[in-house]
Amino acid sequence: MKVRVLITLKNGVLDPQGKAIEGALHGMGFDGASGVRQGKLIELDVTDASSAADAEEKARAMCDKLLANPVMESYTVEVLDAA
Amino acid sequence: MKVRVLITLKNGVLDPQGKAIEGALHGMGFDGASGVRQGKLIELDVTDASSAADAEEKARAMCDKLLANPVMESYTVEVLDAA
Repeated sequence: MKVRVLITLKNGVLDPQGKAIEGALHGMGFDGASGVRQGKLIELDVTDASSAADAEEKARAMCDKLLANPVMESYTVEVLDAA
Repeated sequence: MKVRVLITLKNGVLDPQGKAIEGALHGMGFDGASGVRQGKLIELDVTDASSAADAEEKARAMCDKLLANPVMESYTVEVLDAA
């Protein structure tokens, strides 16, 4: 089952990479860009999941143990298909 | 207007970071994880967009010019709210 994990920095955590991107966008004339935040996107296949709920639970366990830093980051898990 | 940009490596482009994550997941007992691909997530506010379609078009222009590498990466733009 295909799962998409979106990992973002929590609100209030400084995001220098996002600031750098924002500065570069402004430099290229995209003056309307603001509040740029950079996060991580991880797509994976959970092959041993019996259902979409099971796949989501397994992906959440992966996030808690490895993929995300719970101190600074929050994450969202989306099950993309139930094939 | 809040916009979310998902940037992923194109199919066929080697993803060593994804492979490393997959190896680590297997090492932690998540044997069902396969096909792990790591991408980038960029969230930003397009303040000078007149409509959702306009915000998407501006975000696509940003991707083409700065955010994504069109040779190796593909991207998806999602307008999160029309506020």
